[in-house]
Amino acid sequence: MSASRGLFLSFEGIDGSGKSTQAALLDERLKAAGHATLRTREPGGSPGAEEIRRLLVEGDPDRWSAEPELLLFTAARRDHLEKLINPALARGDIVITDRFADSTRIYQGATRGELRATVDTLHSLMIGQEPDLTIIVDVDPATALERGLARGSGEDRVEDFGLDFQEKLRAGFLALAKAEARCKIVDGDRPPDVIAEDVWALVTERL
Amino acid sequence: MSASRGLFLSFEGIDGSGKSTQAALLDERLKAAGHATLRTREPGGSPGAEEIRRLLVEGDPDRWSAEPELLLFTAARRDHLEKLINPALARGDIVITDRFADSTRIYQGATRGELRATVDTLHSLMIGQEPDLTIIVDVDPATALERGLARGSGEDRVEDFGLDFQEKLRAGFLALAKAEARCKIVDGDRPPDVIAEDVWALVTERL
Repeated sequence: MSASRGLFLSFEGIDGSGKSTQAALLDERLKAAGHATLRTREPGGSPGAEEIRRLLVEGDPDRWSAEPELLLFTAARRDHLEKLINPALARGDIVITDRFADSTRIYQGATRGELRATVDTLHSLMIGQEPDLTIIVDVDPATALERGLARGSGEDRVEDFGLDFQEKLRAGFLALAKAEARCKIVDGDRPPDVIAEDVWALVTERL
Repeated sequence: MSASRGLFLSFEGIDGSGKSTQAALLDERLKAAGHATLRTREPGGSPGAEEIRRLLVEGDPDRWSAEPELLLFTAARRDHLEKLINPALARGDIVITDRFADSTRIYQGATRGELRATVDTLHSLMIGQEPDLTIIVDVDPATALERGLARGSGEDRVEDFGLDFQEKLRAGFLALAKAEARCKIVDGDRPPDVIAEDVWALVTERL
């Protein structure tokens, strides 16, 4: 990493965890402090990746089996990195992404059986890049599921999977945080402004 | 391969080589001889793969860099195999596909520099399957280019690359035929019905 390279931050967590709210609050606070930021999300982010996103979140979600789905997520991520994230980091910006490769590790790993090794191999081959800091917003899955359903995003793939699935995802994210030093957990079962203070502390010590 | 498994045939060659005509002629002749066949093509073939095809052949072709493009081709191929090709082979049908993985090896290898090793790794990870017989229709690139332009398919990505590129592709296919025993070359600079006799001889000795 060169001295002028920006900072690459990701938010992860189960659907309805409040991570998108935290990404927005952090972005506002960084901008108010005079930082150049780029806030983005996956799947999607860049124009090409948004085209791929539509294949993943619109239409019958069961029309893709695990491997084509994984390849589509990876194609979108590579485009997102090349076209949006890496140019912003090269300018010295702070990039905040709502989901990145950890979501693929956990969602595909938890939902699609023995795919985790394939996920890791594909990541090494095609992505090979991690955030400098990953903030995992950890919440009780029952609360998160209510939030997700209440939001009615229309992209209801994740909500459809139900509570057992959310419990598996949560366990996956917690295990990831133990294994990866770049991953930090914040307790998401608190008011957003309180959570935001924890996030701010994690980010400012890296600025 | 079990005794009841069908036969998996691919046609390969540069754009305008006449391979699609040969695939159609072979399909007719096999059907007339009482065989159950499935004629298909790449990119595309299955409904999901056709959705991915639209991302690859419609819109600005330069919006994808090499790696996202390769991942999209591979996602489409995996879906095509799972949903269409392998079920047909399991029924005992003869599958005839206009392009398969060799097109990715040659097009991406010839056009995108040092990507060939990545192409091969991704193929092993996600596809891992080859046709029983691959017929490479070999023609003079100048002739092929005229045919392709005359056809005016609207999917003019390949035609756009020009004659130098077609020469590189031809050399790539010829090198592949030397390296892979399943690949057989037919001389495409002859009338279609004459070429079809060579194709028929290659196929019938495998029935």
